[in-house]
Amino acid sequence: MVQNKSVTFLKYPQEYPVPGEHFAVETNELHVELKEGDVLLRNLYISLDPYMRGKMRNAKSYTAGFQIGKTMDASGVSEVIESKNATFPVGTVVTGFVGWEQYSVISGAQGLRPIANPRNPKIPLSSYVGVLGMPGLTAYSSLKIIGQPKSGETIFISAASGAVGQIVGQISKRLGLRVVGSAGSDEKVDFLLKELKFDAAFNYKKGSILENLRAAAPEGVDIYFENVGGETLEAALEMMNTHGRIIACGMISVYNTTTPYGVRNLFHIIGKRITIRGFIVSDFAQECGTDFAKDVGSWLANGDIIYKEDIADGIDNAPDAFVGMLQGKNFGKQVVKIADL
Amino acid sequence: MVQNKSVTFLKYPQEYPVPGEHFAVETNELHVELKEGDVLLRNLYISLDPYMRGKMRNAKSYTAGFQIGKTMDASGVSEVIESKNATFPVGTVVTGFVGWEQYSVISGAQGLRPIANPRNPKIPLSSYVGVLGMPGLTAYSSLKIIGQPKSGETIFISAASGAVGQIVGQISKRLGLRVVGSAGSDEKVDFLLKELKFDAAFNYKKGSILENLRAAAPEGVDIYFENVGGETLEAALEMMNTHGRIIACGMISVYNTTTPYGVRNLFHIIGKRITIRGFIVSDFAQECGTDFAKDVGSWLANGDIIYKEDIADGIDNAPDAFVGMLQGKNFGKQVVKIADL
Repeated sequence: MVQNKSVTFLKYPQEYPVPGEHFAVETNELHVELKEGDVLLRNLYISLDPYMRGKMRNAKSYTAGFQIGKTMDASGVSEVIESKNATFPVGTVVTGFVGWEQYSVISGAQGLRPIANPRNPKIPLSSYVGVLGMPGLTAYSSLKIIGQPKSGETIFISAASGAVGQIVGQISKRLGLRVVGSAGSDEKVDFLLKELKFDAAFNYKKGSILENLRAAAPEGVDIYFENVGGETLEAALEMMNTHGRIIACGMISVYNTTTPYGVRNLFHIIGKRITIRGFIVSDFAQECGTDFAKDVGSWLANGDIIYKEDIADGIDNAPDAFVGMLQGKNFGKQVVKIADL
Repeated sequence: MVQNKSVTFLKYPQEYPVPGEHFAVETNELHVELKEGDVLLRNLYISLDPYMRGKMRNAKSYTAGFQIGKTMDASGVSEVIESKNATFPVGTVVTGFVGWEQYSVISGAQGLRPIANPRNPKIPLSSYVGVLGMPGLTAYSSLKIIGQPKSGETIFISAASGAVGQIVGQISKRLGLRVVGSAGSDEKVDFLLKELKFDAAFNYKKGSILENLRAAAPEGVDIYFENVGGETLEAALEMMNTHGRIIACGMISVYNTTTPYGVRNLFHIIGKRITIRGFIVSDFAQECGTDFAKDVGSWLANGDIIYKEDIADGIDNAPDAFVGMLQGKNFGKQVVKIADL
């Protein structure tokens, strides 16, 4: 018998989810009976992303929540190992939504897309859930549509070494913006400055966020790429220029607390004529998907942009890796490697 | 000698401005020597508006601040009583920026516009600083451009009986929206329901704002017309529907305090893909000015919309009227009548 380790959602957390209490690894025997159209996948990588914390709530949200007692889902990279679907023969490598587990049956192969050249040495497979996947499209599309960046402007990016931030920063540099980032360790700040060539960066855990931002962006901020919320948003509002744009991508600082920080200076939205816009990546997929794949695919293949990943090893480590990511312990985009191709 | 009573700005307030301390009525003799192009105005009405509190700060803002020791300015309706400008002969009635005073010299007649039929019995002169002036254009243009209202949607308007809110509400009703308003007294709520035909309205001083709003808008809010900020904004964010729009016109609840309310649920901006946009009326004047004058002018003349004003009598009462307006004591658009035509 083949065993299938999976991560099951157990209970809604109020603050940080706790492995073993709110979600846990379980082992079951794999019984597979494919119907016409179905495929069996051997999962290679899954993506862990902050938005998943929103699926741990018992509330209406933009994505269906995780179901108590069921395997959690994620975008992944997988190999077809059994198939009743002519489009996805055995051996096809695909991306799509799978379980946090070693093997997934995908009914009707729903949502799967084949990867054309899965053994391209320049494009690691994990890229397809990162820079070439949802986080990459998130960065590319929202910067373009909400940010409307213009050469010479200043962009401030919080969580700038994370899955989305590092792409936003590198695209912004290519567009001629002045790029300022914040991150949660000196090592991350060094990476922003030395590897990603940010113009300025600071560790938000050292000193006043506002004073750090003021020193890093003395001419003010035209675009704020918001991943954090709370005190960082307050500092950004303080430093925004007239007609500034805030791309509201995430607010990770408030996802795991029952007492979120209250932002006190929203009146700047009026005085400075600021636009704040929330989005989810699917809002922009149709408009930007093709350009994104072409642009970012070629930049990555040519080495014009780099992409740092934090790879947890094995499904057993997925719950701890997820909590670590919520706490900012990851350095680069968090993925879980489940198996080799 | 003719005397000219005027209101002089004395000192930056931290909280509510105090007449006599931060601004005060002074009396001076009127000495006028017009240069070529200048006019002398006898002021009939001036407009008192919440945005003026922002001009009482020693900080960069979207409009030049009031100058210590100088007469405060406002939009007004005035009669030309002396002229060295052929475009504005004596007897012309005009609108434009004047002082909080009985008589103003306008160098080069800058910014003045003549009123074509100042004795039209259907259009009181005070309308030109209210429903047909800046507050009217504010309501009309921002509802159209930021709000993008669609028939069947629900709009929530705070400070709904105020200078801007009452126009937003009536235009929204014409467009087929469900209209919900909040105001600060039962008398104002009655006015919204009975005179302006709002679908629902509540007194924000009675009970929980969130629970009042939930009861008034059980299907949620598609457009929030924001005049208030703080706890009302928090309640609106809680009740917003997906792809909701927040028209950030004002946040009067935080203008007069050094400890503004902290808004804790901004994460809804992401989950509900909300757009919040601040603006000032001049942003939209070119795009909307002509349609506004035609539409609102005819609606007002035909009695299709009504406009409630709170008229303080005489320049001596202007400082108290201004503080009263900041405290919500006005009922309808606050103006000061200085003289009859």
